[in-house]
Amino acid sequence: MPTITSLEVIDLRFPTSLHADGSDAMNKDADYSAAYAVVHTDAPDAAGAPLVGHGLTFTIGRGNDIVCMAARELGQRIVGHDVDALLDDMGRTYRSFGDDSQMRWLGPEKGVVHLALSAVMNALWDMAGRRVGKPVWRLLAEMTPEQLVDIADLRYLADVLPRERALEILQGAELGKPERIAKLEASGYPAYTTAAGWLGYSDEKMLRLIAEQERLGFTAVKLKVGASLDDDIRRCRLAREAIGPDRPLMIDANQMWDVPTAIEWVNALQEFDLRWIEEPTSPDDILGHREIRDAVAPIGVATGEHCHNRVMFKQFMAAGAMDFCQLDAGRLASLNEILAVLLLAAQFEVPVCPHAGGVGLCEMVQHASMLDYVAVSGSYAGRITEYVDNLHEHFVHPVRVAGGRYQVTGERGYNTEMHAESIAEFRFPDGRYWSGVR
Amino acid sequence: MPTITSLEVIDLRFPTSLHADGSDAMNKDADYSAAYAVVHTDAPDAAGAPLVGHGLTFTIGRGNDIVCMAARELGQRIVGHDVDALLDDMGRTYRSFGDDSQMRWLGPEKGVVHLALSAVMNALWDMAGRRVGKPVWRLLAEMTPEQLVDIADLRYLADVLPRERALEILQGAELGKPERIAKLEASGYPAYTTAAGWLGYSDEKMLRLIAEQERLGFTAVKLKVGASLDDDIRRCRLAREAIGPDRPLMIDANQMWDVPTAIEWVNALQEFDLRWIEEPTSPDDILGHREIRDAVAPIGVATGEHCHNRVMFKQFMAAGAMDFCQLDAGRLASLNEILAVLLLAAQFEVPVCPHAGGVGLCEMVQHASMLDYVAVSGSYAGRITEYVDNLHEHFVHPVRVAGGRYQVTGERGYNTEMHAESIAEFRFPDGRYWSGVR
Repeated sequence: MPTITSLEVIDLRFPTSLHADGSDAMNKDADYSAAYAVVHTDAPDAAGAPLVGHGLTFTIGRGNDIVCMAARELGQRIVGHDVDALLDDMGRTYRSFGDDSQMRWLGPEKGVVHLALSAVMNALWDMAGRRVGKPVWRLLAEMTPEQLVDIADLRYLADVLPRERALEILQGAELGKPERIAKLEASGYPAYTTAAGWLGYSDEKMLRLIAEQERLGFTAVKLKVGASLDDDIRRCRLAREAIGPDRPLMIDANQMWDVPTAIEWVNALQEFDLRWIEEPTSPDDILGHREIRDAVAPIGVATGEHCHNRVMFKQFMAAGAMDFCQLDAGRLASLNEILAVLLLAAQFEVPVCPHAGGVGLCEMVQHASMLDYVAVSGSYAGRITEYVDNLHEHFVHPVRVAGGRYQVTGERGYNTEMHAESIAEFRFPDGRYWSGVR
Repeated sequence: MPTITSLEVIDLRFPTSLHADGSDAMNKDADYSAAYAVVHTDAPDAAGAPLVGHGLTFTIGRGNDIVCMAARELGQRIVGHDVDALLDDMGRTYRSFGDDSQMRWLGPEKGVVHLALSAVMNALWDMAGRRVGKPVWRLLAEMTPEQLVDIADLRYLADVLPRERALEILQGAELGKPERIAKLEASGYPAYTTAAGWLGYSDEKMLRLIAEQERLGFTAVKLKVGASLDDDIRRCRLAREAIGPDRPLMIDANQMWDVPTAIEWVNALQEFDLRWIEEPTSPDDILGHREIRDAVAPIGVATGEHCHNRVMFKQFMAAGAMDFCQLDAGRLASLNEILAVLLLAAQFEVPVCPHAGGVGLCEMVQHASMLDYVAVSGSYAGRITEYVDNLHEHFVHPVRVAGGRYQVTGERGYNTEMHAESIAEFRFPDGRYWSGVR
């Protein structure tokens, strides 16, 4: 039988802190990093080459080694297993990781061990797509509702999303699926960019980048806020003047505030007609977000990149605390948990606008959005997926964004394979780059 | 100046899975473990011996090495620092760990990095007590309300517990403090035991242990449930018959159920007059706990051992989802965060009944309960602290429980120092015990 022969986890770090890319009120010196898992087999893929899987989770520097260690420990359980058995029942494969009660204690289902599970399962999803020669969004979109509901992690969701209801949502999306796939392939999925809005950028750089992004077809602009209210008022005014009255302007505070401060600060920016305030406070504070949402309407509340599992999303949505669901493909434990969150979002009619950027998140998250459109919500309405034009050159099959939209690339797998050259350069601490600076 | 000279983190694992101690519906093979941090200095302690600090967090086996690694990385920042500056301002020392935005990404404030922070800060609290020759509960209880409120981690709590309100609670507890200290020293703090209720035990063993515990002065009994309803009905009936109608009987499901199942299962046990159902579902599910609480009253809902930070406790209490607050001294990031949760509990009038057992949790948690009684809530009412008579022999100054109550030991520090002999035996994987079995 074809067997998983080894799991390798590589600590990759990119020195992004040198250029203030990725700077926000909470994260001033991020070195975008990936805990990068490579699963090897002795099987052939759809094209006859050796079948492998590449997955990652994203961190911002120190501690990436801890996630790598956890991924190695969690991932060991699949080594020696039958490739087909693992990939034919990805629901069971995913759930088998939850059986390890000793590792579960370290979360449960949150923090380092959950990030690590994401890296390992993402590699298996990449492998599942490669095995059949399809992108993973398409592999999933072509499954039956019954198959999908077995893959989705519905544990602890029965009070708001019983299995029968999940099935009903998926069955409802069967209608028009081929047409939506055709539409997606023709015109892509709507994106927005954070490229112009980093806190470390001067006003001039921000305005230049906004103009550049507009020429590239992006209609929405997002600014980081939260360090100084005066600065935020000035930057929002400049950005709104630059984009005119009709295009969406969003702000992102990266958890800087407590609840009363968030309400006061955001309301001081009401004149700029903001679509959303993102991460106004602690990502754990469901009820706090609801209070903020009630107080700052019509500005919407967006959060999710640090929402650590589907149980948190369940409450955010059930409590009416979230206008935009910004799930993260490295924070949630792979497409099994993402699918559950897509179903919750459909149930509560919350548009999914995934978090991306970092390294590899755009590559993965396009699959989540496409899956949502084709097989779950069936709609683009209110939906827009983050895009940051950063570090894509390290991927063998990077995202392709044109006309302000993610374009279907047609590549098999999860688009998560990185160049050997990039790994040799940025492996930490012994890659060429890091050997040189230390 | 006296300086932190080194931080050592040791992976200790005890082979408890061999005896089904600690078995419950979720955790069938726990090997109680500690990520044990030892901080060395070149300073003398109150008795002139070298000043050291010992702290730990608790895990149940695999993955303890991951927590140790995280504790080493987090703890490095204190090495070389001035001992007095660190210990004189434990609020600032604690908050300085939050400044590391790269490590923060891995939580934030949850999972492995939060457990690791707990181990490191617990060692510093032990050191703070040793430096002045006092137990940490007393070190804290003798501080002014202003000093305490600077130590408590009140970040993200302002909407329900502004600083002024926290100060007011602490000032209110000033009255009668010396009398409460005297009472505590005379009669100790009420405890209950889980010793009889592990799921792996036979009915005979359970009843024998209940009788034994009764002779030792324990009035309350807690049973693990959730594997089989028939078994649970039989075990609850046997236990209730054994202890009579008046003594408290509690059950603990260790997160086994979704919300509808919890409600159905617990209501099927109503006839046994249960005081609480503990961890009925996912520890992240605040709103689910509230729904369960509403549906199973008058049985109370207890949770907290997996409640990963103060923001979660804030919501559990504000939402009316928690009747008993079972904070955990290894899960929360040391007394700084515990103090915040004690203040929240006082604000919402929720009795604090800390989780203990495992290894070292009883040693630490007695300080939390005593601090609560003396300096925060000022009350024993409805409060009872878990106790399990397991693994105390490894501690230099173990808890002393008599007459069903935690007795004040008078030892300086946090009672967290372990015997060199125990470390030599159970260090993983190279201690004598593990070398022998592998």
